[in-house]
Amino acid sequence: MRTRNYSPEIARKLIRCAKGELPCDLVLKNGKIINVFTGEILDGDLGICAGYIAGIGTYRGIREKDLKGRYLSPGLIDGHIHIESSMLEPLQFARSVVPHGTTAVICDPHEIANVSGLEGVRYLLESAGNLSLDIFAMAPSCVPATEMETAGAKLDATEVAKLLDHPKILGLAEMMNFPGTIFADPDILEKIKLTQQRGLLVDGHAPGLRGKDLQAYCAAGISSDHECTTLEEAQEKIRSGMYIYIREGSTAKNLAELIPLVNPATAPFCLLVSDDLHPDDLLQTGHLDNILKKAVRLGLDPVTAIQLVTINPARRFGLEDIGAIAPGYRANLVTFDDLTDFRVKDVLVDGMLCAEAGKLNGETVEERQDQAVPLAVKNSIRVKWSDVDFSLPVRGSKVRVIELVENQLITKSQSLKPTIKNNFAVADPSRDLLKIAVIERHKASGRMQVGFVRGFGLQRGAFASTIAHDSHNIIVVGVSDEEMLLAAQSVAEINGGLAIVTGKDLVASLSLPIGGLMSTASVQEVAEQLNTLRKKVKSLGCHLDNPFMALSFLALPVIPELKLTDRGLVDVKGFHFTPLWM
Amino acid sequence: MRTRNYSPEIARKLIRCAKGELPCDLVLKNGKIINVFTGEILDGDLGICAGYIAGIGTYRGIREKDLKGRYLSPGLIDGHIHIESSMLEPLQFARSVVPHGTTAVICDPHEIANVSGLEGVRYLLESAGNLSLDIFAMAPSCVPATEMETAGAKLDATEVAKLLDHPKILGLAEMMNFPGTIFADPDILEKIKLTQQRGLLVDGHAPGLRGKDLQAYCAAGISSDHECTTLEEAQEKIRSGMYIYIREGSTAKNLAELIPLVNPATAPFCLLVSDDLHPDDLLQTGHLDNILKKAVRLGLDPVTAIQLVTINPARRFGLEDIGAIAPGYRANLVTFDDLTDFRVKDVLVDGMLCAEAGKLNGETVEERQDQAVPLAVKNSIRVKWSDVDFSLPVRGSKVRVIELVENQLITKSQSLKPTIKNNFAVADPSRDLLKIAVIERHKASGRMQVGFVRGFGLQRGAFASTIAHDSHNIIVVGVSDEEMLLAAQSVAEINGGLAIVTGKDLVASLSLPIGGLMSTASVQEVAEQLNTLRKKVKSLGCHLDNPFMALSFLALPVIPELKLTDRGLVDVKGFHFTPLWM
Repeated sequence: MRTRNYSPEIARKLIRCAKGELPCDLVLKNGKIINVFTGEILDGDLGICAGYIAGIGTYRGIREKDLKGRYLSPGLIDGHIHIESSMLEPLQFARSVVPHGTTAVICDPHEIANVSGLEGVRYLLESAGNLSLDIFAMAPSCVPATEMETAGAKLDATEVAKLLDHPKILGLAEMMNFPGTIFADPDILEKIKLTQQRGLLVDGHAPGLRGKDLQAYCAAGISSDHECTTLEEAQEKIRSGMYIYIREGSTAKNLAELIPLVNPATAPFCLLVSDDLHPDDLLQTGHLDNILKKAVRLGLDPVTAIQLVTINPARRFGLEDIGAIAPGYRANLVTFDDLTDFRVKDVLVDGMLCAEAGKLNGETVEERQDQAVPLAVKNSIRVKWSDVDFSLPVRGSKVRVIELVENQLITKSQSLKPTIKNNFAVADPSRDLLKIAVIERHKASGRMQVGFVRGFGLQRGAFASTIAHDSHNIIVVGVSDEEMLLAAQSVAEINGGLAIVTGKDLVASLSLPIGGLMSTASVQEVAEQLNTLRKKVKSLGCHLDNPFMALSFLALPVIPELKLTDRGLVDVKGFHFTPLWM
Repeated sequence: MRTRNYSPEIARKLIRCAKGELPCDLVLKNGKIINVFTGEILDGDLGICAGYIAGIGTYRGIREKDLKGRYLSPGLIDGHIHIESSMLEPLQFARSVVPHGTTAVICDPHEIANVSGLEGVRYLLESAGNLSLDIFAMAPSCVPATEMETAGAKLDATEVAKLLDHPKILGLAEMMNFPGTIFADPDILEKIKLTQQRGLLVDGHAPGLRGKDLQAYCAAGISSDHECTTLEEAQEKIRSGMYIYIREGSTAKNLAELIPLVNPATAPFCLLVSDDLHPDDLLQTGHLDNILKKAVRLGLDPVTAIQLVTINPARRFGLEDIGAIAPGYRANLVTFDDLTDFRVKDVLVDGMLCAEAGKLNGETVEERQDQAVPLAVKNSIRVKWSDVDFSLPVRGSKVRVIELVENQLITKSQSLKPTIKNNFAVADPSRDLLKIAVIERHKASGRMQVGFVRGFGLQRGAFASTIAHDSHNIIVVGVSDEEMLLAAQSVAEINGGLAIVTGKDLVASLSLPIGGLMSTASVQEVAEQLNTLRKKVKSLGCHLDNPFMALSFLALPVIPELKLTDRGLVDVKGFHFTPLWM
């Protein structure tokens, strides 16, 4: 557990402020104080001293702030998020979520870990060191996700142990390899043992797991899940001792289905989390403030909803000094105009007003730390271009084609006769039959694979991305080999990111120089550029709302049915490679 | 936090049992399983493997036990108890409480700490090492309780730090010196800091503390209280972030008053604890099983009541592998015939049936460990008898007299003319004016104090005890100096304990050779001897039901109004010594 840990000098000052012998640094007056221990909403002055809450009652302060009847809540805590999904470096992520009332996140940095390993995770934790947002992390448990792809790093048990000793690491991140866990894979059990030996927690990830397999997964030592999609599944999991993280993010939305799970008995074991949060969603709808609004609209009691993003994650992760408004807690606070829309007015972190009415406070704007980004993170694109070749000589009569399923992560597998030109299979936009390729980009191995995909509808050009779950190789789709090569080279030239090409022209790009995953620009800029890119892809004939996201999941060999990695075409259900040609 | 911590080999076996690939070691059939996560009572087989719960569902086992519809609960956990109050060494304590369903206690060993310091605490923790009862402890925070008495040891911050590093120590025990805490006493703040640095918790003890003083006490880092006597006090404290340990023990009974505190919002922050548990109460009414019965009779929902002595203390103290029935938890289990009387049938610890129908299971009876009791614990009585003198030459016209208040720990102060014989003030049973003395017994300093007490009603003889809170010097009361000397010497001769004397005869005694506080005999023997002693004291004219307990609190200089220590008569309200003679 992480309890309050202030020096005796600060304790002495706090005690004197609490007793009223000294004026507080700041007193918040006329707030409706949400008490997460009793579920009450109480009146009172809140006295703050040295960044901590000194007391609640009648207090005077060197500075006083009138909250004019606004609701005062503990700062919001997201118990499970991949910061990389925002495409923002930690600094920019903090700048974007703090005005929405988020004062702490527990992240799983497994995207950057797949690119840059320990160095990537450490960079993420260190770069968060001076932010007003608390960034805690879980040690990524499954890097690489499978043996069927080439990631930039492999975190074996020894490396996981190193991470577990980092003071910001609270446990082992979502154990996605649930088949391996219930198969008692020695490497997985070793990672769990190392976590438990340190008194830390193991988060789960087990979509649809039920019955005896679920009992086995829990018996292995896993104590949470954020993948429930049905109420029955969530009920079975909470009965089995799992904390249920109800997810409402950019990719998966389970709130409406799972709200009935929360009752007075189960509430202490429920959290609300985002998991993934895209920059445009963050900009347009917010973060946990938006999830609170939705939860209350769906019928959840507002104070209970607040408990699910304050005291509950704090207790789940053993963070004893945040998540509540009481003496000795850090003065991480949010005010809301009401408990229906949850519009955030003031955000205080360690007693400092960091944001007001959705804007960062000028005085306390985060300053970029002149911190060295490790080379492994900054220069993450290493491709042997001489080996890159998109041509497909005819080797059979039919090819296996990945077929997109709109708005879902799953794909279907089709077998089709390819269009042939000069004894080579080629893309044929008239049939919506595009080429897709995954190019290893971590070790310049020259390894790559080419296949076919249907469902993008692209009529001209090509687009590429270095976000390709979970190994984040270069993934590119297009109507011609030349445009695909240019698109791939374009993302490499900007040190990773997204790019669109037509003919010999780079149409638009978004640079993600931090591991090929994250930008150093603001959320506004990133969302705007992403919007431009989407419009451009649409103008080339693609009818998908979010073509880059769809592309990014086509290399993930754990979601059925047919996927492509740098090592080959994967039959996910059979969990083996399958030939392109039939 | 202490998470499950089994080896990968055991994890593998557990997983296989959970999946049904291997038969479990033991399957409990036809139980009504209490689910503390959902508040439900569910049907199902409970599969146990290697001492852990493998799964709940349909299981087969090498052995199977039919629970015949009994309620199956997690083993009960007492979040705050002084084992010494049972007068039983840990072995005997375990033997007596396990049949009542108690499988873990978090104790504050401050009685033995006052006698034998670090060695005493370590003895208590080590001697519990091989018991079926889990004995966790908090590091005593206030040894000695005050500077106005002589204890056998002093635990300063350095020594507290040593204890905090012991794996069975979960935090800093009840901070009884609440005036010192809100006065920001540097030694107290240092002890709190050392605790927090280790991620451990600080328990509180602040009877009646309210308002700004309470805020200051919480701001110092203290996060629980078990001294609430009114509902309003408990409500204020829980709002201030304190876990409320609702106490129902041998000495203080707060359950009836505090039951209304528990509602769906507050329940996760409430515990039921005993604090003190005398051997006769333990024998006649039980332990937490009895508190559960009372709580339900007072209107508390039975499953909520069970949560207050299972999952709640487990989560409060970061014990992640006990307190619930779910896969991966230790198979510490209790069955009840019903949820009204809470009569305990089976008690399993680590999957082994340890007790049945109130009797220890013959096969698993605890064996005495041939463990060396440290000298400081075994030979704890050191008195310079040549300096012991009960005579009181006349030094004024009146004396300050301690007046007992029946069934309360407080006393009143009276000023009376003493009965004089040959220029000495003497005891006068006809006026119910007895002599009382406290003799330093740790360091053979020869220091002692003599005073007067009213309220025992003793007409003949004297009785003495080495249980005298908190320093546990010899305390003796009697009608003549000679009998008082013999009583004091008698308790010394039996290595500490209780004794009654008339004339030159030892009437009865109870040997407490472990620190002068605890017996090595069974609870039955101790309760019987204690009962004999009480009857004998009654036969000498004393009308109190519990004269030894009344005596034991007369040396505690923190409970008003007038007390006697080896250093002098104490005016508790003024917190200073006061002369006997006026």
